[in-house]
Amino acid sequence: MSDTSTAKAVITLSVGDETVSLAAAPDENLLEVLRQRPDLAPPAPCAGRGRCGLCRIILESTGKGGTPEIHEDERALLTDADLKDGIRLACRVTAADGMRIRLEEAGIAHIETRAEGSEVELDPVLVKRAVILPAGSLEDQRSSAARLEEALDLPGGSLPHGLSRLLPSIPDGNTPLTVVLDDGRPVALDIGIDTTEALWAAAVDIGTTTVAMYLVNLADGKVVGSHAELNRQGPFGADVISRLEHARKGAAEVVELQQTIVGQLSGLLKALVKEHGVEAGDVHLLAVAGNTAMIHLMAGWDAKGLGEAPFLPAALDSPPFPGKDIGFKGFPRLRIWPLPSLSAYVGADITGGIVASGMHVRDNTDLLLDIGTNGEITLGGSGGLVCCSTAAGPAFEGAHLSSGVGSIPGAVDHVDWIDGRMTFSTIDKVPAVGFCGSGVVDLVAFFVKSGLMDDTGRFVDQLPEATLESDGEGRFGGMTIEKGETGPVFVWGINAAAGRRLLFTQKDLREVQLAKAAVAAGVETLLRQAGLTAEDVGTLWLAGGFGSYIRPDSAAVIGLIPTDLASKTRSLGNAAARGAILCLLSREKHEEVRRLSDEAKTIELSGRPDFQNAYIEAMMFPAG
Amino acid sequence: MSDTSTAKAVITLSVGDETVSLAAAPDENLLEVLRQRPDLAPPAPCAGRGRCGLCRIILESTGKGGTPEIHEDERALLTDADLKDGIRLACRVTAADGMRIRLEEAGIAHIETRAEGSEVELDPVLVKRAVILPAGSLEDQRSSAARLEEALDLPGGSLPHGLSRLLPSIPDGNTPLTVVLDDGRPVALDIGIDTTEALWAAAVDIGTTTVAMYLVNLADGKVVGSHAELNRQGPFGADVISRLEHARKGAAEVVELQQTIVGQLSGLLKALVKEHGVEAGDVHLLAVAGNTAMIHLMAGWDAKGLGEAPFLPAALDSPPFPGKDIGFKGFPRLRIWPLPSLSAYVGADITGGIVASGMHVRDNTDLLLDIGTNGEITLGGSGGLVCCSTAAGPAFEGAHLSSGVGSIPGAVDHVDWIDGRMTFSTIDKVPAVGFCGSGVVDLVAFFVKSGLMDDTGRFVDQLPEATLESDGEGRFGGMTIEKGETGPVFVWGINAAAGRRLLFTQKDLREVQLAKAAVAAGVETLLRQAGLTAEDVGTLWLAGGFGSYIRPDSAAVIGLIPTDLASKTRSLGNAAARGAILCLLSREKHEEVRRLSDEAKTIELSGRPDFQNAYIEAMMFPAG
Repeated sequence: MSDTSTAKAVITLSVGDETVSLAAAPDENLLEVLRQRPDLAPPAPCAGRGRCGLCRIILESTGKGGTPEIHEDERALLTDADLKDGIRLACRVTAADGMRIRLEEAGIAHIETRAEGSEVELDPVLVKRAVILPAGSLEDQRSSAARLEEALDLPGGSLPHGLSRLLPSIPDGNTPLTVVLDDGRPVALDIGIDTTEALWAAAVDIGTTTVAMYLVNLADGKVVGSHAELNRQGPFGADVISRLEHARKGAAEVVELQQTIVGQLSGLLKALVKEHGVEAGDVHLLAVAGNTAMIHLMAGWDAKGLGEAPFLPAALDSPPFPGKDIGFKGFPRLRIWPLPSLSAYVGADITGGIVASGMHVRDNTDLLLDIGTNGEITLGGSGGLVCCSTAAGPAFEGAHLSSGVGSIPGAVDHVDWIDGRMTFSTIDKVPAVGFCGSGVVDLVAFFVKSGLMDDTGRFVDQLPEATLESDGEGRFGGMTIEKGETGPVFVWGINAAAGRRLLFTQKDLREVQLAKAAVAAGVETLLRQAGLTAEDVGTLWLAGGFGSYIRPDSAAVIGLIPTDLASKTRSLGNAAARGAILCLLSREKHEEVRRLSDEAKTIELSGRPDFQNAYIEAMMFPAG
Repeated sequence: MSDTSTAKAVITLSVGDETVSLAAAPDENLLEVLRQRPDLAPPAPCAGRGRCGLCRIILESTGKGGTPEIHEDERALLTDADLKDGIRLACRVTAADGMRIRLEEAGIAHIETRAEGSEVELDPVLVKRAVILPAGSLEDQRSSAARLEEALDLPGGSLPHGLSRLLPSIPDGNTPLTVVLDDGRPVALDIGIDTTEALWAAAVDIGTTTVAMYLVNLADGKVVGSHAELNRQGPFGADVISRLEHARKGAAEVVELQQTIVGQLSGLLKALVKEHGVEAGDVHLLAVAGNTAMIHLMAGWDAKGLGEAPFLPAALDSPPFPGKDIGFKGFPRLRIWPLPSLSAYVGADITGGIVASGMHVRDNTDLLLDIGTNGEITLGGSGGLVCCSTAAGPAFEGAHLSSGVGSIPGAVDHVDWIDGRMTFSTIDKVPAVGFCGSGVVDLVAFFVKSGLMDDTGRFVDQLPEATLESDGEGRFGGMTIEKGETGPVFVWGINAAAGRRLLFTQKDLREVQLAKAAVAAGVETLLRQAGLTAEDVGTLWLAGGFGSYIRPDSAAVIGLIPTDLASKTRSLGNAAARGAILCLLSREKHEEVRRLSDEAKTIELSGRPDFQNAYIEAMMFPAG
């Protein structure tokens, strides 16, 4: 943002029925202006670098400056029809006074929220106890606090001042009290009423891209609802590294990121309690899973060390703390409990996933895979766990690919080859807008099996005629093949009306190749270090959205996972949130996750010769 | 301070490297002279009455007057070694021209940490520890929080969020940290610096009438200064009951009372830290003594139950809590620790007094008496304590008497009968304005001994001529005797110029009679219940201002204390604050005071037949 304050511009933003005015500094682009309203700002995984094409806005009126020149990035990422409709990229349009813009109805990302269905016995660490505060008398002049301590079997004088100051000195006869106990320690109090039936908590997985929250009834163990949104920190950068870079700019940016996510969590929780008729004051605990960086930014821990070697966190866990300490509003009695993380790169999403899988308490050796920008890999069982993280890059999240997208409506999630013709299925069954991770894996598996590429990841010069059926109009199996700078470019004309085309290039293939090699090499390194092979693994647990949609066979075909494990995979859905929910419901799980920092060893792969060897070997594709 | 300005003396004061000259009026004592420089003046909780022994100075040169005679108070409060070293009490040495004195330490008066013989070793519960936060590496990627937990020998994951969010993720090499630990739990943190030399606490006694605060250096165990003021809740009622009545009016009144005292505490602490150059952020704990009602009003505990039978408190103790929770401003890291009270009427002033006396750890059976509007009585020793409170009424505080006053300048604190003539000494040696408690006791003792009243507390009709020497002008022994409605009225024309007269009536005598009977009956009840007599008591400890000034012989003469104990009294001064200071300085004393609620039994006297019998018996005066 410009630091001059002259010539302020005011722009008008409309979203649905809502219209707001936003001030813009000179030379500020619209994406920067829109970040004043993180709840409305469009996603910008490329952090405003004109790469992702997602910060689409409709320029309804140009204001005083006249029509802004169309940037070359906009020509590359928008269709002629888009431009004709006034669609522009917010990051490439300079704000001008009087400008009126509109946001397209937000394409809500499809977020994995399946986390319910626990097989644990309801035995939460957070409980309510109804007690009777007996009336005093001349024969029993003890304080109300002392009576309560006795009723709760607590040491005398241990009741915290925050609760003792709520107690009546003269209980009205025998007065019912309801005490909220967290691991035996009293943390909240309802006077004069038995509220044991109203004990609520929430679990959230703060992903870099998406935030999914679950409302949990601790009185009966039911997960009553969930809400998911794109992480509103998106405008500050799509990936962890760009968020951390933003945080490094200064204290104001740290606060900005923290307030953005805390505000979002508070909004999600408000929506959930409203929907389910829950009193805000009855929500006592929010269990937070997420990668180490997201947890740091939420908790206000110093995140500087996370982004550079030797990758040092400020903290990896904490006892629950009051929500108001991080600016959480609207929930006066809410306390925040970040699930323990294990290292700068093995976060509370992984510990949550481990708990969700149950691998840490089984005698088998299992493998847990959570593939995002980093692939986090955990190997082991009840005898101990080893975790690592490999830098897969964002290819499996749809970034850095010509037509890659996240898990949004219209994302191609599966690719099939039926009767000599390629068919796509898309999220929400709307016209295809690009490939998301699971679609990319299917697509590359097709290329491997079709013989269109060799085992070094190079598209062949001559199309194997047998594989591709020509329709006589230049399309082979539904694709047209154009000649690109570094090899063939596969093109699908999916949405003729909008003139949108999906592309897959040699460069895209290389991105996928690097990503799958990193994950495969991580798995290989952990197995070798443990003296095991893939055959020794009992179950391959797949966490996260990608892990839920990926076809294990396709993953094995491209060498992302060992072939021996294709038939042993089990999907965990949102494993991180599921783990957090289990920890809310079960004292046993709660204690297990807290013990993981002792039982799970993390190893740093970067710089290890055995990992580097494995990485180079894993670069090759299996024979088709 | 004298108001004449003739014959000025000049004395020289050295403090560290600083030397200043101060002018002294004739007959002014050194403490009065030193008060010209409140930044340097030693504390004098007894207000210069030779009771506290805290205004120690080194007399380097005697000046023109020769060596000042050693006062009996100095003999009582200083050791032979002190005297040999030239140490004197400033309040007991008259300034002389050319005198050179030195304060023992720069800006800091040496304060005994002895409480009447019970010496404590500096071993505070609140400590600072300097630790090194080692730099991380690829081989040691633990979090800063985990490194700190290890350095402090704390369980993993126990560092509170309030501190973990202060930690740098990348310690700059091996980073020095200073951690404030309260009973082993970390409560504050200084980053990058060893601040172990700057650890401060304060102790305060919130009396109904006066508030006295002491600033304590926990790094070396010294009490560096004190300030006392009238309790600013005074306008809401002079006594506990009227304060409680005000609080009963509603929530706004409760807040009003709380904000008044919290604002006063904060102001006192600000003045102290300013005077002694202490950073507000280095003051970490305020130990609060006071009666149960004052503690309730300060802590925000519901005080409704205190004022009426069956006398129920909301709480009697609490772990330390953040000052900001009660609106304490200006001290971001201050936590408040109310010393434990024992019942609605046996407060943290008494537990402080018990600790100050040391009676709870001695094998003797001792008696502790704190006489104000209520007389709190404690009997026992290391084998256990029994406490009670009797409603003495405010006569000993000067209230409800024709010419009663508090301990203000001009209050008659002692009455003597010398050569057939009554003489008065007054506080600050200014003309008499009324009788304070100790003066009243002396006066009534005179009436008992003179035969002017009978043992039922009735003034005799005929003056015993032998006792009173007439001056031939209607004055007998300095008094004139007028006829009042219910008997003679004794009148002293003290300040003829102002026309002020001091009176003492039959009704006044009845007030004193009721008050002394209540206290004496309480003592008698406790003794009988324990199967003891006064002879079995080792020491009678007298707490508070009244206890400091009262003449034990006079108290015995009027039957306030058993005759057998008159020679066994010891005065504790501000015992409540002294006890609080000891608890700050000594882990042992801290634990002792917390155990008192188990070891000390409180009994309710109201309605007990044995107390009622004793009360009626104690109503009589001993034979003169």
